[in-house]
Amino acid sequence: MLSEFDLIRQYFVRPGAPGPQVELGIGDDCALLRPTPGTSLAISSDMLVEGRHFFAGEDARRLGHKSLAVNLSDLAAMGARPVGFTLALALPAADRDWLAGFAAGLFALADAHACPLIGGDTTKGPLNLCITIFGEVEAGRALRRDAARPGDDVWISGTLGDARLALAALRGEVAVSAEALAAATPRLTMPTPRVALGRLLAEQGLARAAIDISDGLVGDLGHILARSKVGATLDVDALPAGPVLATREPALRRAFTAAGGDDYELCFTAAPSRRDAIAAAGAACGTPVTRVGRIEAAAGLRLTDGHGAPLDLQLAGFDHFT
Amino acid sequence: MLSEFDLIRQYFVRPGAPGPQVELGIGDDCALLRPTPGTSLAISSDMLVEGRHFFAGEDARRLGHKSLAVNLSDLAAMGARPVGFTLALALPAADRDWLAGFAAGLFALADAHACPLIGGDTTKGPLNLCITIFGEVEAGRALRRDAARPGDDVWISGTLGDARLALAALRGEVAVSAEALAAATPRLTMPTPRVALGRLLAEQGLARAAIDISDGLVGDLGHILARSKVGATLDVDALPAGPVLATREPALRRAFTAAGGDDYELCFTAAPSRRDAIAAAGAACGTPVTRVGRIEAAAGLRLTDGHGAPLDLQLAGFDHFT
Repeated sequence: MLSEFDLIRQYFVRPGAPGPQVELGIGDDCALLRPTPGTSLAISSDMLVEGRHFFAGEDARRLGHKSLAVNLSDLAAMGARPVGFTLALALPAADRDWLAGFAAGLFALADAHACPLIGGDTTKGPLNLCITIFGEVEAGRALRRDAARPGDDVWISGTLGDARLALAALRGEVAVSAEALAAATPRLTMPTPRVALGRLLAEQGLARAAIDISDGLVGDLGHILARSKVGATLDVDALPAGPVLATREPALRRAFTAAGGDDYELCFTAAPSRRDAIAAAGAACGTPVTRVGRIEAAAGLRLTDGHGAPLDLQLAGFDHFT
Repeated sequence: MLSEFDLIRQYFVRPGAPGPQVELGIGDDCALLRPTPGTSLAISSDMLVEGRHFFAGEDARRLGHKSLAVNLSDLAAMGARPVGFTLALALPAADRDWLAGFAAGLFALADAHACPLIGGDTTKGPLNLCITIFGEVEAGRALRRDAARPGDDVWISGTLGDARLALAALRGEVAVSAEALAAATPRLTMPTPRVALGRLLAEQGLARAAIDISDGLVGDLGHILARSKVGATLDVDALPAGPVLATREPALRRAFTAAGGDDYELCFTAAPSRRDAIAAAGAACGTPVTRVGRIEAAAGLRLTDGHGAPLDLQLAGFDHFT
């Protein structure tokens, strides 16, 4: 029988120094961070619940990846450099195979971002993964939701909608070939947080406001508009669809790019004078960036087709309680 | 129907500036903290699961108190001053009465410690409360588990065992009068984190190692011994029993003071030269402090009775998986 302390020791404590800002890692009442002078500490917490954020029986390695990826994506949306994270884990049982897979997926992504596990909690209970992540961003450079200004361009990183298409297929809502499903599913189960792009946008002062797209673009951009007290026009046909969704009919493409979910791309706003520098930043980190709209003084979000004609799509962001 | 965003707005967003170190609170991808120069940031995460850490149907207000109290207790054990916390919450349903009660209990304690809620997550799922808390402690002053030295006194704050007695009574393991149960139960459901004492011990450099007693003294002191590579002798009859447990038979008193659980008192070590200053610190913050043993070079924990004779108690700390 694996004890709680053996479980932590065997699967979650790793050799070596945890990181430059980590004064004390796992094994005390608290972890200790020594933040870099002149930076703000960015903090985000996400809780993933079985049957809600992932299917029961989901592969443990992919789950380890995704649970950290969604938090790294929040740092990316703030323009912060990862510093470390805590993991609180409720498990129905201490299953060695599951733990080994989960830790492998978790640490592969953590290592890729030099983001060490610094503490947490382990308990028995219905499967629940709660990660709180810490990052640093130069004081005054954080990409806040309340910073968009009329005249700003609206940008999107990467492509949208393939995660939503995979989810719809797995739920039996949309018919998708096995091959197409295999191509789209990694966008749902193994999202890529745009940390490098977020850092460049903040460090070089290129973007004003940013958010990561987790609940669908229309809903998430709506948070920027509300916090910044502005409106926007969005060219729905300019939204870059994922390669699988791009082969589908226009109505589905519009719905799943504009209001899909689980994209973990960045939506950000920037002055038009920054266009070339933003394109260069995207190229420098290998992440496509696309201009898809414009921030305006008039409140509300106006959707248009590729010819500028108004589109009346019934779209809404995801909500856990309605 | 209460939406996720309404839920957060109505029950968890509060007017006013959140706190001196909080640059940005609830409502963005990340919260932003601006740590005080010359301090280390102490971070702890605790997850509370229904049926595991509290009984199903537990009063929401008490639950709000306890979920923050256990985290404040971790800051206390590090000697850190509270700065803020995040709350990730999985709820079976958005029940207004429950939310109002939970928020009332949570914020009453948060306000008492000037510790604002700065962010978090809300989702649907089996009831699960995950708080990550942040505190500051002067660089080099944190009370770490690995700092005990041979010759140190072992100290306990407050009293031990009444929480464990209440739990035993509620589980039907021990017969307790209704009056005694009513007196002991608040120790289980409304623990008092020893934040002021922890701060004095760190700020004035009085203690070396510290831990908070959540899984039973013997197990928790064992963590200090293991991390500090030392041993100790503990006078079990010197352990200050809670007022209800103090009226019970010696065997129960020994078991529940030495290895109860849910005490949320501090166990700390300090040089004998600090005795008077520690007594003064306890008096200054109204928390009794009691010397109960001695750190020794020889590994292992030796239990004695009040006459120094060895005691062979079968005791173990709480483990979630064995």
